[in-house]
Amino acid sequence: MSTPLRKPALPSAAFAGANGQPWEEVLAFDADPRDPYLAKAAELRKIFHQDAAARDKAGGRPTEQIELIRKSGLLKVQIPREYGGEGQPISTAYRIVREFARTDGSLAHLFAYHIQQLNKVVTSGSREQQARLFTETAKNNLFWGNTGTSFQRTLTARRDGDDYVLNGYRTFSSGSHVADYISVVWDEDGRSDRISAFLPTTREGLAILDDWDGLGQRQTGSGTVTFTDVRVRKDEIRESQATAGTPFSTLIALLAQSALTSIFTGSAQGALIEARDYTVEHSRPFLASGVERVTDDPWIRRVYGELYAQTAAATLLADQSLRVLDSAWDRGLALTAEERGAAAISIAAANVFSGNVALDVTSRIFEVTGARSATASRGLDRFWRNVRTHTLHNPAEYKSRNVGLWHLTGAFPEANLYH
Amino acid sequence: MSTPLRKPALPSAAFAGANGQPWEEVLAFDADPRDPYLAKAAELRKIFHQDAAARDKAGGRPTEQIELIRKSGLLKVQIPREYGGEGQPISTAYRIVREFARTDGSLAHLFAYHIQQLNKVVTSGSREQQARLFTETAKNNLFWGNTGTSFQRTLTARRDGDDYVLNGYRTFSSGSHVADYISVVWDEDGRSDRISAFLPTTREGLAILDDWDGLGQRQTGSGTVTFTDVRVRKDEIRESQATAGTPFSTLIALLAQSALTSIFTGSAQGALIEARDYTVEHSRPFLASGVERVTDDPWIRRVYGELYAQTAAATLLADQSLRVLDSAWDRGLALTAEERGAAAISIAAANVFSGNVALDVTSRIFEVTGARSATASRGLDRFWRNVRTHTLHNPAEYKSRNVGLWHLTGAFPEANLYH
Amino acid sequence: MSTPLRKPALPSAAFAGANGQPWEEVLAFDADPRDPYLAKAAELRKIFHQDAAARDKAGGRPTEQIELIRKSGLLKVQIPREYGGEGQPISTAYRIVREFARTDGSLAHLFAYHIQQLNKVVTSGSREQQARLFTETAKNNLFWGNTGTSFQRTLTARRDGDDYVLNGYRTFSSGSHVADYISVVWDEDGRSDRISAFLPTTREGLAILDDWDGLGQRQTGSGTVTFTDVRVRKDEIRESQATAGTPFSTLIALLAQSALTSIFTGSAQGALIEARDYTVEHSRPFLASGVERVTDDPWIRRVYGELYAQTAAATLLADQSLRVLDSAWDRGLALTAEERGAAAISIAAANVFSGNVALDVTSRIFEVTGARSATASRGLDRFWRNVRTHTLHNPAEYKSRNVGLWHLTGAFPEANLYH
Amino acid sequence: MSTPLRKPALPSAAFAGANGQPWEEVLAFDADPRDPYLAKAAELRKIFHQDAAARDKAGGRPTEQIELIRKSGLLKVQIPREYGGEGQPISTAYRIVREFARTDGSLAHLFAYHIQQLNKVVTSGSREQQARLFTETAKNNLFWGNTGTSFQRTLTARRDGDDYVLNGYRTFSSGSHVADYISVVWDEDGRSDRISAFLPTTREGLAILDDWDGLGQRQTGSGTVTFTDVRVRKDEIRESQATAGTPFSTLIALLAQSALTSIFTGSAQGALIEARDYTVEHSRPFLASGVERVTDDPWIRRVYGELYAQTAAATLLADQSLRVLDSAWDRGLALTAEERGAAAISIAAANVFSGNVALDVTSRIFEVTGARSATASRGLDRFWRNVRTHTLHNPAEYKSRNVGLWHLTGAFPEANLYH
Repeated sequence: MSTPLRKPALPSAAFAGANGQPWEEVLAFDADPRDPYLAKAAELRKIFHQDAAARDKAGGRPTEQIELIRKSGLLKVQIPREYGGEGQPISTAYRIVREFARTDGSLAHLFAYHIQQLNKVVTSGSREQQARLFTETAKNNLFWGNTGTSFQRTLTARRDGDDYVLNGYRTFSSGSHVADYISVVWDEDGRSDRISAFLPTTREGLAILDDWDGLGQRQTGSGTVTFTDVRVRKDEIRESQATAGTPFSTLIALLAQSALTSIFTGSAQGALIEARDYTVEHSRPFLASGVERVTDDPWIRRVYGELYAQTAAATLLADQSLRVLDSAWDRGLALTAEERGAAAISIAAANVFSGNVALDVTSRIFEVTGARSATASRGLDRFWRNVRTHTLHNPAEYKSRNVGLWHLTGAFPEANLYH
Repeated sequence: MSTPLRKPALPSAAFAGANGQPWEEVLAFDADPRDPYLAKAAELRKIFHQDAAARDKAGGRPTEQIELIRKSGLLKVQIPREYGGEGQPISTAYRIVREFARTDGSLAHLFAYHIQQLNKVVTSGSREQQARLFTETAKNNLFWGNTGTSFQRTLTARRDGDDYVLNGYRTFSSGSHVADYISVVWDEDGRSDRISAFLPTTREGLAILDDWDGLGQRQTGSGTVTFTDVRVRKDEIRESQATAGTPFSTLIALLAQSALTSIFTGSAQGALIEARDYTVEHSRPFLASGVERVTDDPWIRRVYGELYAQTAAATLLADQSLRVLDSAWDRGLALTAEERGAAAISIAAANVFSGNVALDVTSRIFEVTGARSATASRGLDRFWRNVRTHTLHNPAEYKSRNVGLWHLTGAFPEANLYH
Repeated sequence: MSTPLRKPALPSAAFAGANGQPWEEVLAFDADPRDPYLAKAAELRKIFHQDAAARDKAGGRPTEQIELIRKSGLLKVQIPREYGGEGQPISTAYRIVREFARTDGSLAHLFAYHIQQLNKVVTSGSREQQARLFTETAKNNLFWGNTGTSFQRTLTARRDGDDYVLNGYRTFSSGSHVADYISVVWDEDGRSDRISAFLPTTREGLAILDDWDGLGQRQTGSGTVTFTDVRVRKDEIRESQATAGTPFSTLIALLAQSALTSIFTGSAQGALIEARDYTVEHSRPFLASGVERVTDDPWIRRVYGELYAQTAAATLLADQSLRVLDSAWDRGLALTAEERGAAAISIAAANVFSGNVALDVTSRIFEVTGARSATASRGLDRFWRNVRTHTLHNPAEYKSRNVGLWHLTGAFPEANLYH
Repeated sequence: MSTPLRKPALPSAAFAGANGQPWEEVLAFDADPRDPYLAKAAELRKIFHQDAAARDKAGGRPTEQIELIRKSGLLKVQIPREYGGEGQPISTAYRIVREFARTDGSLAHLFAYHIQQLNKVVTSGSREQQARLFTETAKNNLFWGNTGTSFQRTLTARRDGDDYVLNGYRTFSSGSHVADYISVVWDEDGRSDRISAFLPTTREGLAILDDWDGLGQRQTGSGTVTFTDVRVRKDEIRESQATAGTPFSTLIALLAQSALTSIFTGSAQGALIEARDYTVEHSRPFLASGVERVTDDPWIRRVYGELYAQTAAATLLADQSLRVLDSAWDRGLALTAEERGAAAISIAAANVFSGNVALDVTSRIFEVTGARSATASRGLDRFWRNVRTHTLHNPAEYKSRNVGLWHLTGAFPEANLYH
């Protein structure tokens, strides 16, 4: 082996990939620092990293961190420039999610659900709603949360003139504890689809319990929101004749999958890097190993090599699925059912694969960091707890079946809330 | 599920990736048909496919197929235009290898070793040798083979004036049975590196035994070549003051790994597709399955989905390593040790990962094609036998260790004949 | 490490397990040499081993080996003593299958199917048929084969007085090419179960084509048997009022699974041992390994250790399932549905697990035997081909589902021809 | 499938294994209820189960539970009857460990370390020490802890007449927070082995910090013990001319491995059962599953089946290693190096395999319990955290290498503190 050099001189610009980023950076999973939004996200990640383990342990609200995200301007990264946003591709939003997930799955999750709620306004809201909400969000760096994950019929609505009045509760309400706006959905008897609306979290009758008790993703506030005679105005109900029934409107399910994929990929990368830093700085060779430094043990080298290769493969499959998502999203209402189907396959494959890799990497890192790394305060297990928790929300089994059926017959999955 | 449609209408051009190829094609692992060299390779693949299983069973020489490759012009695909070649990037050569491997690992192997030998003239031959040999190869579509894989000291050389006279034998001489030129190497006492030369296979004293007995890669002719007073002229010895000791000259080991990666990736893709075709056309649901069509069984769908996702991930990691290889190769003598090191890591990761995926896919396909697919004459097992045989030539273990050490310390593997 | 000693002194009798066999032997997967039937089987295994690879390559009939089995008396090992047999437990028969499978999956298969056919006379034949056939079999060391594996309706029968006359064909007729008696089944319109009979292979109109083309289990003669006006006498039809509809009669499906389990387990053991012998005798350390002897490489040690541990676990699960099978079989007609169910679970778990282990071990051994071991003539791949072929006959998927449902609810699988 | 019946009628006595336990119980991983010590352990397990998750969350001391163990008499289960103990085989002690680990890895660990410390008195103490300490322990149901796990030289000793005076600290002191006696070890300059002694925890100068912060095994009190001028009397130093240098004395390392194996096996079993109960009682089918009950989903069935089969295989390999351990332990000073070596192999194989299975099972159960099961308060993740933490203490890598080398050459691992 050549003399170990912790930081090799950066390769010259000539040794760079198609987009000009040096290969050395690409191989190290670095977000492209020449993209100002990704550079900003990387900067935030470093700040979040300082107390990510401690905050994970504490649970509750990452108040300061949310404030930093607000100030960064990233909440409007994908909002069109005409509404005061940054007009970046949807893939950039998910690259930010991935970047956050490298140290903090909860903040990644909150950002991803914010993006998800905003895009619901695109896929099923009217032009007017988009203009109004996007402008307000961009101007004030508003945060969006969600109460629509659960499918239990725990929320009832009655008509009162043009308004609805809601009573009941919602579980799994990610981001509600930090949000300015939340999305809310309910079923109406005799109607096959659900009605959805957006509400400011200051709306009378809303109570956000902040009772989330997940074993992972602990600062996502994915707890209960109760509704006591909460009034929803007609113009708060998402409704669009333009998008209704279009393939484009069904992309929303693929955004949810892309959020998961980004969190899985970032978690695997982050776990691998945090473990590496621990091993190099703290680990000692096993007594029976016969080597002087832990990095001399062929076992330690091999395991890191295997985990790296998997993570790199997952990253590229996730990257591809984001490029496909950009293609699909940019097609807008012209998107055909076949194009939507192809996007669903790419995104499902990346989702399944990155979830499996993330579960493996986040558990196996301990093998190479060793007994003394396994403390509650160090929190190296938060990566596994985050991924383990989050993989349960849209089981890989059904995504695999969809991919397999497509490979067999060319059939695409029926668009629904999950795929 | 939507109605299965075997061949969905091709997505419009608008739904295409950065290089303009429709996503649907990319997802189906199709080589880009707009690249005339890859289109030609795909065409040849279809021809090779007609009797790939039968030829695998027979072993020996794929005489007609070699002739088709000669006529296709692909043997000169990477030779610079100034010497009458096509001047395509080195990655194109390996994409052709992958394409062939989708049905015939032996032909892929022979083509890859041809490319490897030609590039040895670049990394360690003189300008004059390049000019002479490339011009002749391009003009006559010559095929190159190899006798230099083994490291056993079974070949001795004595000086006779400026010439060498060789006696002994070489094993693992891939391509020798169809080659016009072969590469030959030997050790000289008191010299740390090996001496290498190229010889026409018509040279007096050379005997190609065609005694290869591999359980896979059965038409590669990787058997014994014997040397009886074989004379090597001074100008046939590869020697270059320009490249000696440069990082560039050590890229040859990475080419060998890239050949393996391309064969692994193509084999996984080919196995998955050939299995799919069998399942759709011939497989019947298991008696206890409770489904009417085999494609309705959630088990069959899931397994194909899992195999697809893995294969797609391996493909992208292989693709990335080829882009890195292009970057490194194109740097020529300006390539730094660090750049060479980064290329080694990318290529090693792809090699390890694609080998593992290929082993898994080529074995598990039988689970979903079923009992009646497992016949010797159908030869669906040739994919596993090819990959199993070929993965042994450069064990993943040491590549993994190299990748792991780099991830840990930034150290690059020492350049040698393997990595 | 202490000085390697290839053959440690055998542990004293005091260091032995409950049944008195020294632990050292147990750990080495040795059949208990104090059991004369297993000792005989081990002796035959050594003879079979001499040309197992060559015969696998040749396919066809293992004529001499079948003759040796006949002469050994093992064909009657399980036949009750009152009929001239050896009266050994049914588990002994499957331990013999396992022993043979350590070198020759085909002979193991033929012996297992012989046992299976004989036991069909127990589970669904009359007392008179048992007496007659067992006496004849024991006296003349007859071999039984099978034509009843396929469920396709390719055989028709018409009544002619009390007789049936058969026309058509059967595929997957394992052992038909060496058998004295074969089992035959057909469907009768309007009857839910199949009719089954046994016939001497000399019966007029029977033609055994010996056209088996499997990629594994190549000497099992699992090809086609054609029937041209083949007459079946009433007393050749298996029929028993005593056993019809009893849980006991459904044990036959568990015998078939036990045959597979025994072949999987023996194949894993045999592959591991044959690989070990190759590594120790022939393998050389990899150039980049930095070790002098291949057995010094931590990689080689680790892989063998992992493969050994898996194989040992599979062996014990298979052993347990054989003890359960003995318990169930010995209960005879008193066997309850619950007892039969518990046996089905134990046997299914062993079947699934040993199949997976065998697939893994038989493929991964090459990693530690190396490139030069992968020749067609050495035939080390026959283990994988055998297991890969045989695992397809009763897919693990459905067995796993059965075991899982039982674990969840306590429900036993419905007894049928597969489980 | 037959109608699910949650609790099938227990099989009749006739359908039982060699030791008379009904197969149905064996398959359900039930400890044999006819063994009064195991019956008592199972009873305690049910009590521990009531708040196992809550106590895991709380960390600290399981005071009430330790009291229940004291009262149960199990602390003396293995102490010879002549000293007032129960005189049970050492395997019974580890079966109790496994039983506890089915719900509470910490209590299992504490009990195992108690057993370990007692047996150190056997392997390296004098007859007098055994008589004195065993009698006292049996009479008063004393609990033993440990401060000797770490190999760091953090404890110094100086001679004072016949006594030693200790200063410094020890980490990883499992059980120190609940123990009456602790084991302590230190290095003496110029002496290759460590000196060890036992001390009452009331000894002046000892401070037990109870600062354990593990992410698993959270109530084991594996924190720091400080020593300030702690006096050790000559007769408290373990020293035995009878056992010194004997193979028997090195069995202590195998006891430590057996403790781990028992915890891994019990954790896998417990996780599988607790998950099953959750799935049956609480889980709902996935929206896209198309089934009414979660137990109807082939996916859920399959996964449980796979996890069950693995766990069953691990259980049997662990059982075998306990039988081997009994054989070795009962040989006493007559134990030969070869017998000790064979025991080391059996125990290492079980350790490696059960650790891998436990990691897999404790992570994958979530896949089949679903999103709502992943709460901190339910604590289903404690199984994974316990196993993940505990597997780090004696890495599988080196055990695998030992097993592999033995399989290759017959060489046994050199006896040391780890294997």
